[in-house]
Amino acid sequence: MRLLFEREVEPLASRPGPGKLQFIPLGGLGEIGKNLALLVVNQDIILIDAGLAFPEEDMPGIDIVLPDITYLIENKEHVRGIFLTHGHEDHIGALPYILRQINVPVYGAPLTMGMVEMKLQEHQVTLHPKSRAVTPGEVVRAGVFSVEFFRVNHSIPDATGLIIRNPVGTVVHTGDFKFDQTPVDGRVAEFHKLAQVGQEGVLLLLSDSTNAERPGYTPSEKTVGKMLDSIIERAEGRVIVASFASQVHRVRQVVEAAVRHGRRVAVVGRSMENVVQKAIDLGYLDFPAGTWIDVDEANKLPAHQVVIVSTGSQGEPMSALTRMSTADHRKVTILAGDTVIISATAIPGNEKYVARTVDNLYRLGAQVVYGREAGIHVSGHACQEELKLMLNLVRPQFFVPVHGEYRHLVHHAQLARDVGIDPSHILIGENGTVFEFTKTTGAIVGQVQSGKVLVDGMGVGDVGNIVLRDRKQLSNDGILIVVVGMDAQSGLMVTGPDIVSRGFVYVRESEALLDEARQRVKTALTAMEGNNLSEWSAIKSQVRDTLGRFLWERTKRRPMILPIIIEV
Amino acid sequence: MRLLFEREVEPLASRPGPGKLQFIPLGGLGEIGKNLALLVVNQDIILIDAGLAFPEEDMPGIDIVLPDITYLIENKEHVRGIFLTHGHEDHIGALPYILRQINVPVYGAPLTMGMVEMKLQEHQVTLHPKSRAVTPGEVVRAGVFSVEFFRVNHSIPDATGLIIRNPVGTVVHTGDFKFDQTPVDGRVAEFHKLAQVGQEGVLLLLSDSTNAERPGYTPSEKTVGKMLDSIIERAEGRVIVASFASQVHRVRQVVEAAVRHGRRVAVVGRSMENVVQKAIDLGYLDFPAGTWIDVDEANKLPAHQVVIVSTGSQGEPMSALTRMSTADHRKVTILAGDTVIISATAIPGNEKYVARTVDNLYRLGAQVVYGREAGIHVSGHACQEELKLMLNLVRPQFFVPVHGEYRHLVHHAQLARDVGIDPSHILIGENGTVFEFTKTTGAIVGQVQSGKVLVDGMGVGDVGNIVLRDRKQLSNDGILIVVVGMDAQSGLMVTGPDIVSRGFVYVRESEALLDEARQRVKTALTAMEGNNLSEWSAIKSQVRDTLGRFLWERTKRRPMILPIIIEV
Repeated sequence: MRLLFEREVEPLASRPGPGKLQFIPLGGLGEIGKNLALLVVNQDIILIDAGLAFPEEDMPGIDIVLPDITYLIENKEHVRGIFLTHGHEDHIGALPYILRQINVPVYGAPLTMGMVEMKLQEHQVTLHPKSRAVTPGEVVRAGVFSVEFFRVNHSIPDATGLIIRNPVGTVVHTGDFKFDQTPVDGRVAEFHKLAQVGQEGVLLLLSDSTNAERPGYTPSEKTVGKMLDSIIERAEGRVIVASFASQVHRVRQVVEAAVRHGRRVAVVGRSMENVVQKAIDLGYLDFPAGTWIDVDEANKLPAHQVVIVSTGSQGEPMSALTRMSTADHRKVTILAGDTVIISATAIPGNEKYVARTVDNLYRLGAQVVYGREAGIHVSGHACQEELKLMLNLVRPQFFVPVHGEYRHLVHHAQLARDVGIDPSHILIGENGTVFEFTKTTGAIVGQVQSGKVLVDGMGVGDVGNIVLRDRKQLSNDGILIVVVGMDAQSGLMVTGPDIVSRGFVYVRESEALLDEARQRVKTALTAMEGNNLSEWSAIKSQVRDTLGRFLWERTKRRPMILPIIIEV
Repeated sequence: MRLLFEREVEPLASRPGPGKLQFIPLGGLGEIGKNLALLVVNQDIILIDAGLAFPEEDMPGIDIVLPDITYLIENKEHVRGIFLTHGHEDHIGALPYILRQINVPVYGAPLTMGMVEMKLQEHQVTLHPKSRAVTPGEVVRAGVFSVEFFRVNHSIPDATGLIIRNPVGTVVHTGDFKFDQTPVDGRVAEFHKLAQVGQEGVLLLLSDSTNAERPGYTPSEKTVGKMLDSIIERAEGRVIVASFASQVHRVRQVVEAAVRHGRRVAVVGRSMENVVQKAIDLGYLDFPAGTWIDVDEANKLPAHQVVIVSTGSQGEPMSALTRMSTADHRKVTILAGDTVIISATAIPGNEKYVARTVDNLYRLGAQVVYGREAGIHVSGHACQEELKLMLNLVRPQFFVPVHGEYRHLVHHAQLARDVGIDPSHILIGENGTVFEFTKTTGAIVGQVQSGKVLVDGMGVGDVGNIVLRDRKQLSNDGILIVVVGMDAQSGLMVTGPDIVSRGFVYVRESEALLDEARQRVKTALTAMEGNNLSEWSAIKSQVRDTLGRFLWERTKRRPMILPIIIEV
């Protein structure tokens, strides 16, 4: 496999000397997504998470984005293991690509490893045989590191943080977390362990910055359960609940409410079916006998006995709920009297898709429950008071905010100052930053290569800036192809110029414009005939210039112009 | 000028018979944007607003979107005038295009007409000589209609609603409004007039649905002034305030705060400069002598004496603030110690651009004040309690919610039911819906053509679904052009096939792939030689099929494939 990189940066940082620890994020700082970081002590490296990101709006045609792992590959013989904090795509999604290049043991909590197995199967990649599911509380040794998983709360079961002991000093990585005082599974985040390690002394805290802008506390997942229950109780027709597939606790609360109110539950959408099945297999979810029914069966039941759990909470074009909203789902037809609950918040960039889905569901006559104020969703990330609690429990010597766009890191740093951490011990960096610590010092000491590797179809890294620039130009104004047949000996134009366009104008309506364009090119090229043209580049420039100027003047557009010269 | 239309719909509705009034929105219902509606009685039509919309994310290369006005054009001899409620683009932006086709008198409040003049000058369109600025309270006669403008509050001065008296019954159109009890210019919305017309009897209310999802009241613009004042007071360095150019009251409050705290004000960004100048000329804004300074002058003053008012509150790529945030502005360099206030809310779809601007400003060391919770912006639209107040004041027989996406209309209809309007008198429709009323009845009676006319550069309507579909395909996977020279007589391939690609893969890295693709095409075409190919379409299909299959298999991508056959 070949990897091409988006940007070439400074030379590689040298690995830390004795008594030093480096923290090197290759993803997740200055962005939400593709979390991946190295911890380096002496000859040993461990990875924390291996996630992907979803493409930005300026990456047409791109399916997913991976972190650039050049630095990792160049140091691959030192990598002792990959530690996963939880099973979300932005923490495990790059694994299939990374394991093809460095096959090291992978460790994570049971559901996390379950999600990993599903993903690796799909990609036909096998885990290193030493990989294993780790129960929170267990300690895994990897080189000089001993890594202890501790339980946190998040929007997926089995979310963990890591206490990473090593000769330089203890590092605490929170993973994605919040403190839920009344979690659905009864498993409160391990305050005692955090308090204890804070007591023992922590060199460095790496903490989730996603909600660092938001004051207060994130409400408990159970508040959502109560609201869902009351909506399902009052609904006279079917209830359709859209959520993230990995939100197993949400699904659990829907199932419990359904059972309480005499309804059965159909599960719709491939990822939802897969994750629900995996969660049942691993004991994270329970459907009382007869509760889980097929959609066909649901369609035969009276409406007030049915709940449907579905994908599509982000308005994703191909998802089950979106298809329902456009009356395009194979098995579920939205009817007046249905209640649709969109139990999620739109991820930035998806707001318009969700809004469109809501509009379309209303057009079909459904009742729709959605939006921040409806009480049907809570964040999976800690707000400011929880972040401060984490800082106060762990009491680190040094603090690096992670997992956030730049403004989130800035706000999180401010919270650290607010709770009294020495401002000179709070370090803000971005992907590729090399943070280096001794037992008493901490500083940014360099920068290694980092960036984006774009995946388009089966191609990993074969779409880069030039291809994207072309795609953007093509999408803005289309393309004109100008074909000219030239006699190589005489330098005379034999056929053409012919012009073919795509994505520029309705050809049928713009014949006159294209005719005139052809004439302009012809005149320009005829004027060049007889000159000794040893190669065609002068002709190509002439075509581009003449046509570009003419079209700008007439249309104020700049389509791509592609001259093709055929020797005949 | 040629207009092509996005969709062909049902035949034109016939105009209403005697004693009937029709309301026909051609834009603004089921969307936010391109507001334009017809009121029809007997032989007379008046237009309410003539706005544009901004392109959706699935309209690459499109600059603006106009309403399809086919129905209007076909009835143009009956149009008696265009009544503008206020000067925002989504209410006046289509005027230059419409006036080129139906040159009728335009009426609006003074600032509205000032904005119109600026716009028409740019487009070199002149107003019908009977057009004029109308002071709220004045009545304009147009055919059977007599139209009285009344003052409302909104995020631009001189926002008005319309009381439209006619033989069938009084229609009240709110325009975009909120009720600001303490407006910056002291001009409270005209409650008394609304109460009075409600007393007299109103047949139909058409009311702004933008914030129909939001409970409570929209806070007064003055609350923003207080917050801006306190930020400017506390700031030790420069303060840069980004806002919409048309938010003249916001600018006024910034200027007042600047003066109070011994600062002078520079204005940056072309549209901001134009609107500020126009507002000063018309008496809506006042800079005390010496307060408005040039940016160059500002750059020479101590930082604590400077406020900069700027465009770019939506993170628009070419705007002043965005350029500052990427250290790319010609005259303003962001420094540590600067305070940047983004005094606006991101319009749906712009969230990521605004977030990126904030991140970049932080990277440059600025303090940034932004977001819903910061108290530095309020909406210009009425929330639920204000919408109910409007309904209760006007007490219409019939109610049609306007100005909103479908879900907003649904919520607004619910508010009308909540205040006791007969549910059968509440009608929800979308663009093109024909609402017909008599003195006692109201119903949806038909549908006229409506839709989107896309403007790309100088082309109005010459980009439609096919061109957009091509642009989307081009942007997702690029294009491969396959050039083959054929001998027309023999049907033998003489040159090629040659393959040129753009936006597909890095060519340098994918030579082997493209070589193999060429071989595949060659083999397929060679197999066809000797067949009697009277035309080239079979060859073209063969190229598309062979190459399409091969590339999908190898790359899981579907680039556009364009075979070009040259007769040689």
